[in-house]
Amino acid sequence: MEARAHGLSTLEGYSGYGAEQGEKAMRVALAETFYGGMDIKDNEIFVSDGAKCDIARLQLVFGPDVSIAVQDPSYPAYVDSSVMMGQTGAFRKDVQQYSKIQYMRCSHENDFFPDLSSVPRTDIIFFCSPNNPTGSAATREQLKELVAFATINGSIIVYDSAYAIYMSDNNPRSIYEIPGAREVAIETGSFSKYAGFTGVRLGWTVVPEELLFSDGFPVRNDFNRVMCTCFNGASNIAQAGGLACLSPEGLKAMNKMVSFYKENTAILVDTFTSLGFKTFGGRNAPYVWVQFPGRDSWDVFGEILEKSHIVTTPGSGFGPGGEGFIRASAFGHRENILEATSRLRKLYL
Amino acid sequence: MEARAHGLSTLEGYSGYGAEQGEKAMRVALAETFYGGMDIKDNEIFVSDGAKCDIARLQLVFGPDVSIAVQDPSYPAYVDSSVMMGQTGAFRKDVQQYSKIQYMRCSHENDFFPDLSSVPRTDIIFFCSPNNPTGSAATREQLKELVAFATINGSIIVYDSAYAIYMSDNNPRSIYEIPGAREVAIETGSFSKYAGFTGVRLGWTVVPEELLFSDGFPVRNDFNRVMCTCFNGASNIAQAGGLACLSPEGLKAMNKMVSFYKENTAILVDTFTSLGFKTFGGRNAPYVWVQFPGRDSWDVFGEILEKSHIVTTPGSGFGPGGEGFIRASAFGHRENILEATSRLRKLYL
Repeated sequence: MEARAHGLSTLEGYSGYGAEQGEKAMRVALAETFYGGMDIKDNEIFVSDGAKCDIARLQLVFGPDVSIAVQDPSYPAYVDSSVMMGQTGAFRKDVQQYSKIQYMRCSHENDFFPDLSSVPRTDIIFFCSPNNPTGSAATREQLKELVAFATINGSIIVYDSAYAIYMSDNNPRSIYEIPGAREVAIETGSFSKYAGFTGVRLGWTVVPEELLFSDGFPVRNDFNRVMCTCFNGASNIAQAGGLACLSPEGLKAMNKMVSFYKENTAILVDTFTSLGFKTFGGRNAPYVWVQFPGRDSWDVFGEILEKSHIVTTPGSGFGPGGEGFIRASAFGHRENILEATSRLRKLYL
Repeated sequence: MEARAHGLSTLEGYSGYGAEQGEKAMRVALAETFYGGMDIKDNEIFVSDGAKCDIARLQLVFGPDVSIAVQDPSYPAYVDSSVMMGQTGAFRKDVQQYSKIQYMRCSHENDFFPDLSSVPRTDIIFFCSPNNPTGSAATREQLKELVAFATINGSIIVYDSAYAIYMSDNNPRSIYEIPGAREVAIETGSFSKYAGFTGVRLGWTVVPEELLFSDGFPVRNDFNRVMCTCFNGASNIAQAGGLACLSPEGLKAMNKMVSFYKENTAILVDTFTSLGFKTFGGRNAPYVWVQFPGRDSWDVFGEILEKSHIVTTPGSGFGPGGEGFIRASAFGHRENILEATSRLRKLYL
């Protein structure tokens, strides 16, 4: 990135507007690195300023008249962007749900995978694995079930794989490992949690050619049009960073960083477990999902904040299914993680 | 930008998610540099990845049920994003217009400023000055008229000032130079044409506190929510570039660059004029608007491309009011501009 930034001041290195879809080399590198053997072509990959931004642009493609389903709990951007598009109907305070959204409850009681036989058909299914906030990851069998469900219903899956690099178990890292996914799934990814690029802003979204609207029109063409009209390409400097990440040295560095955060996760899991709490996630994600049975998430959040000066995330912020949980994040310096665990021991031992 | 990119590899220089609204220092510097004496506060400025992207996000704020007016001709993103939001109704091939958009004709016959007495009220008015593609700039009196028109009608002006730095005449560089504009206008700006940042991606949008929807709710609050949900801040490296641009040396460098392109513009104007063409714009913008009376813009575009191997932009691409014109751009190396003028002389002398 430093070299690319410097290059912009030279005649040879300057570049102006790039392709809205991202630099060709970047799209090719993404296809080869993350989608090898999955038949994803570079022109099906759109480079962007992040997965969150792409979710909003996908909502622009879908428009206000679609029905949506989300995992409950889930990353709030799916619901929030859906509210903005006018898809959701009124908010029902009694159940803490929007009336027109299907909430697919994912808890330890169902292995964090929804009982699809009880989920009504929707046009769009947002699905995040490894999951934020629960840290759970869907197995191959579960994803096969999800793809079959979308295929039968003519639904589009928006598969958020922002944490795929944290997968330890032998679960798919991409929805496209599942046969038939090219016909039903969009996948979005990000360098934020792969390379600490949260401030640099770089992500991507895959829209396969075979994914069609019910009238036979390719979704990819519409997404391409939105990318060209509502976006102007990711920063050329950020793309240089992405290319470096996908080099052999870059991949090594990313995996090293991920291993470090996974050690943090293990420390957090050990701490909460030894204090008698039930934890979930952690193995395939940088997040630990900690149960406080019968308690209000915000109360627990407040207790830990006020008594130990540690910030966690209250589970109910991710949907009604998150009530009674907090999310602990592994993204921190080792000494801070250790300090936090020592304070948690003082608080709960 | 080079230093900031390098800094990201150090403990002290690393930064993760920034404020979605942009770094405080950047917002302060924008307020001081471009809005001195105009009472624009830093918390009314949102830093973004470009004006085009902000226009789409503003459309998300407005939603599908607003009526819009655009200058004709105008930068296509206003109409295209409006189509995506579902504001425009059907396209009428006979007049090359969307049925629900008000096209405010701006031509040399009305000094490139619409006859507002004949423009029906709309919720939103997109207005770009200095104008892309005509290169015209609205005078203080004209902008007073526009602000009064919006005030009477309860309309919101989206004022695109992406070329303000090219202003030579004593016209306002910001809509906020006009009294009352804080109550009716949003302004969007960009570093793309100020510092060659087209590939770096950096812009901003101003939404004053006093700008309210008809129910009294601040537009700024809604835009803030869209920025936080559908965007995650401009790249930190790009923001470092923006801060450098707004330093005394940066401003000097930007003005030097702008002067260079204005010399290009003057060369283009001279060439077309000496060949007997009527030209407009150029003085306050990097674009020259060249009239080919009675001819089809695409035919002229094709003629110049095929016979002289020069790319211009056909005027009708900017709306029906652009028919019979081409846009010539000053963004080029001097030797290329001179080569182009020499070829144009061969073609048209």
